[in-house]
Amino acid sequence: MPIDSPYAELARRHARLFRLRHASAMLAWDRATMMPPGGLGARAAAEAELQLQALALRTDPAVGELLDGAAGEALGDWEAANLREMRRDWIDANAVPATVIERRALATADCELGWRRQRPQNDWQGYLPAFREVVAVSRDEARHLGDALGCGPYDALLQRYEPGIDSARVAELFDHLCEWLPALISRARARAGDLPPIGEVAISDQRRLARSLAGLLGFDFDHGRLDESAHPFTGGVPGDVRITTRFSEDALLQGINSTIHETGHARYVAGLPEAWREQPVGAARSFGVHESQSLGLEMQLARTPDFCARLAPLLVDAAGPRAAFEPASLYASMTRVQPGLIRVHADEPSYPMHVIARFRIERALIEGDIEAGDVPAMWDEQMVRLLDVDTRGNHRDGCLQDIHWSKGAFGYFPSYTLGAIYAAQLFAAMRAEVGDLGSRLRHGTLEPVFGWLQHHVWSQGCRFETDDLLRRATGSGLDTGPYRAHLLARYGNDADVPAGRDGQARGDGAAVEPGCNPAAGAGSSDRS
Amino acid sequence: MPIDSPYAELARRHARLFRLRHASAMLAWDRATMMPPGGLGARAAAEAELQLQALALRTDPAVGELLDGAAGEALGDWEAANLREMRRDWIDANAVPATVIERRALATADCELGWRRQRPQNDWQGYLPAFREVVAVSRDEARHLGDALGCGPYDALLQRYEPGIDSARVAELFDHLCEWLPALISRARARAGDLPPIGEVAISDQRRLARSLAGLLGFDFDHGRLDESAHPFTGGVPGDVRITTRFSEDALLQGINSTIHETGHARYVAGLPEAWREQPVGAARSFGVHESQSLGLEMQLARTPDFCARLAPLLVDAAGPRAAFEPASLYASMTRVQPGLIRVHADEPSYPMHVIARFRIERALIEGDIEAGDVPAMWDEQMVRLLDVDTRGNHRDGCLQDIHWSKGAFGYFPSYTLGAIYAAQLFAAMRAEVGDLGSRLRHGTLEPVFGWLQHHVWSQGCRFETDDLLRRATGSGLDTGPYRAHLLARYGNDADVPAGRDGQARGDGAAVEPGCNPAAGAGSSDRS
Repeated sequence: MPIDSPYAELARRHARLFRLRHASAMLAWDRATMMPPGGLGARAAAEAELQLQALALRTDPAVGELLDGAAGEALGDWEAANLREMRRDWIDANAVPATVIERRALATADCELGWRRQRPQNDWQGYLPAFREVVAVSRDEARHLGDALGCGPYDALLQRYEPGIDSARVAELFDHLCEWLPALISRARARAGDLPPIGEVAISDQRRLARSLAGLLGFDFDHGRLDESAHPFTGGVPGDVRITTRFSEDALLQGINSTIHETGHARYVAGLPEAWREQPVGAARSFGVHESQSLGLEMQLARTPDFCARLAPLLVDAAGPRAAFEPASLYASMTRVQPGLIRVHADEPSYPMHVIARFRIERALIEGDIEAGDVPAMWDEQMVRLLDVDTRGNHRDGCLQDIHWSKGAFGYFPSYTLGAIYAAQLFAAMRAEVGDLGSRLRHGTLEPVFGWLQHHVWSQGCRFETDDLLRRATGSGLDTGPYRAHLLARYGNDADVPAGRDGQARGDGAAVEPGCNPAAGAGSSDRS
Repeated sequence: MPIDSPYAELARRHARLFRLRHASAMLAWDRATMMPPGGLGARAAAEAELQLQALALRTDPAVGELLDGAAGEALGDWEAANLREMRRDWIDANAVPATVIERRALATADCELGWRRQRPQNDWQGYLPAFREVVAVSRDEARHLGDALGCGPYDALLQRYEPGIDSARVAELFDHLCEWLPALISRARARAGDLPPIGEVAISDQRRLARSLAGLLGFDFDHGRLDESAHPFTGGVPGDVRITTRFSEDALLQGINSTIHETGHARYVAGLPEAWREQPVGAARSFGVHESQSLGLEMQLARTPDFCARLAPLLVDAAGPRAAFEPASLYASMTRVQPGLIRVHADEPSYPMHVIARFRIERALIEGDIEAGDVPAMWDEQMVRLLDVDTRGNHRDGCLQDIHWSKGAFGYFPSYTLGAIYAAQLFAAMRAEVGDLGSRLRHGTLEPVFGWLQHHVWSQGCRFETDDLLRRATGSGLDTGPYRAHLLARYGNDADVPAGRDGQARGDGAAVEPGCNPAAGAGSSDRS
């Protein structure tokens, strides 16, 4: 297209936006990893200013005209997809009035501060007033966004994290999981026996190990860094990916798992289409697809007997021989099912239950079916029903455990479990093409694994909507079948667990069977 | 003043500008300390975008109208000084056409890249074409800036680093130094005897030592960091100062000196007036005043027998007892005069000679008295004349040693020596008030030293022009007398060196004698 076409001008503006976001990403990374405590005040102001500058670019009325103009241009498929994402951004940027954005910023800053103080005190009543304000402004925000998108308020928030999926579908998927997963968890928990203790490992040794592990999984230290922060995350930009992990002497596996997890995110970011790096179409598809890449490495690739066999000698090198480092013990430790109160420490099959509880609560909260003050009761009720754990009176390890809601991040939680479902689906399709991953882990290179992900996911950016991305990669749209098969193979057996409506349970490594979405109801029965 | 007054609106805009510069400062720090090599491309684009955003704020035509409006407001003295600095910024931002700025950015990026490749090869001819373009565009820039400021082109560039001083005055000061300093250097060099070798010290030990030293000098690690980079610098913002140093196993004193030096810069930044942090008047006064604070700690405070006595046990703790760590040996090592080719490794009295050579060359270059291709010959001529060293054919350690000119930073070099002069003047006045620093170093706290600097320099920001700042702090405007007295006391004696025109040489710690600026000519005789 001509250099002065509306599309070309939009692309130039988005390149500028990307560069501002680069700055924001690095400041946020620095804040979490490097910044001295006294730097916070000035940093908050600087980060807010960058957001203002970005918002000014995104809401410039000229963009609306350019989008209309570009709609008439003859565009290639990448350009057309880019234009679709530009329009999505334009709607999102303009939907919410500045007064609401400002009120939201104040409310969430206040609530986050309160959360940091009141959570350790288990002080729900102290926390509640600030949280009420966050809920009120988030409902307002969601209503505006829903008006712009033509959907309900919670669905509108979901679009920010998982464009193209609505809450009815999420509820259906999640209700389906609830039909068979609690039973699987309870049987697996009953089977969990004693294991040799891992013991303590010096943090300096864990640091070296983490670097080896990230390297083994293809993390490119010429285009990224691995550091430490209170909460592991992946930040930075495609050519300079910043991942963090955290180490504790008595929690070796936690550091290992979070390193693998963040390396999965990092490889996705690094593998995004280079030619489109500064454009919306060059970004990650969604939070759920992002999570599918971290969980793909963590759960599909690494949490396997063969990876444990590969890991064991690294552990012995780092900390000397221990019974717990025997591959079989290591695998047993990594797959031990023991439901608890805390999401971030949950075992693989329990994790979705934590997510489902949060999804049901936040959906009810945003839709106005419950009020802020009702959250603890609904939390207690969901946790006992889904995980058989008692959270009554324990707000600190109950509904106050996560920071998400204090920051107004409603609609985020489902992405964790959608990611787990996508990961199972993608890896099942990959195995069908590249063969057994176990033998690759034992004898060969992992390059075909990464090559498949690069080809089907990383290099595609936002070219396709998620369902289409999945269909092109796996032959099927979103499908819980492979996820169920994966969990059954790893944690259960056919006799243990009643078959879901997608038919017979399948073993790990089974080919994908398309179109087996559950037909469960809209899940309203679970939303009380 | 009313919240919607022109001045108030200007202050709001400058706060936004400060926040953008916060982002730029942190990205630059990250680039030098943390960024993986592959991050450079994306980083350059992000940093350029932030500069564009800042320039757009600075050149918005509304600012000109606001400045005119604010001129009629009744302002307090800080506000009036702030308005003066705002106008200075407005003139600087608007003086140079966008086409020149763009051409400059391209030329300097190209030349800097060339410098990195060609300097190690000693390849002046390879470097020259890109340098010619930098000189051409810098002359253009200087002419535009001079037109806006009503001064000559080189004087205009000087204003960016040392507002309020012109090149005739700099030449006069420097010519004055040339009357007595070369003789002092040559005598001191002749006296320099053998010293016990310092030997190697492990980098991990040097790191710990550097943190202790910075802490001893009042660096606040709650509001700053100390890291490592190829070239030490001070970055960040007042509440979050980022200093760097560099360590080499066989260059212990280099790491110590650069840590002390950057801590001096850091204390100035951290001590800038908190109420004016986001405003122009809250910034450092000039590059020279900045350098006076680093050289104040490095040369005036630390390079003394009493500081060496304080340092010695720290060195023994870090690396075990060595003959070179005896206070007297340490002081002798630190004050050893041995002129060489490289500015950044120069001893204290030789350093100004390196600066004077560069000042003469860059002034001639910008004024059109010489061409880019003439630089090596003038370099050789100056270096033999000023320092009696032979640089012929050695471009790498000659005119290619510094990066400044490749980046188009003409007018910067004089600040180094102006800073040394200011430092001597300020510390002489301080000693007259707080008493002998030696006994403070031996027995007491350094707080009165820092308190004096805080009161007279740090907390003043840009409230006064430099000469006025000096006069209020020392009773005299810019004055080379104390600098001469300082160097004579440390490196020479009256019999060694002919008296300058400011009268009799004075010993270290002498009271300041105001008004003794040299009356030497305009220095044109040295500009061939």
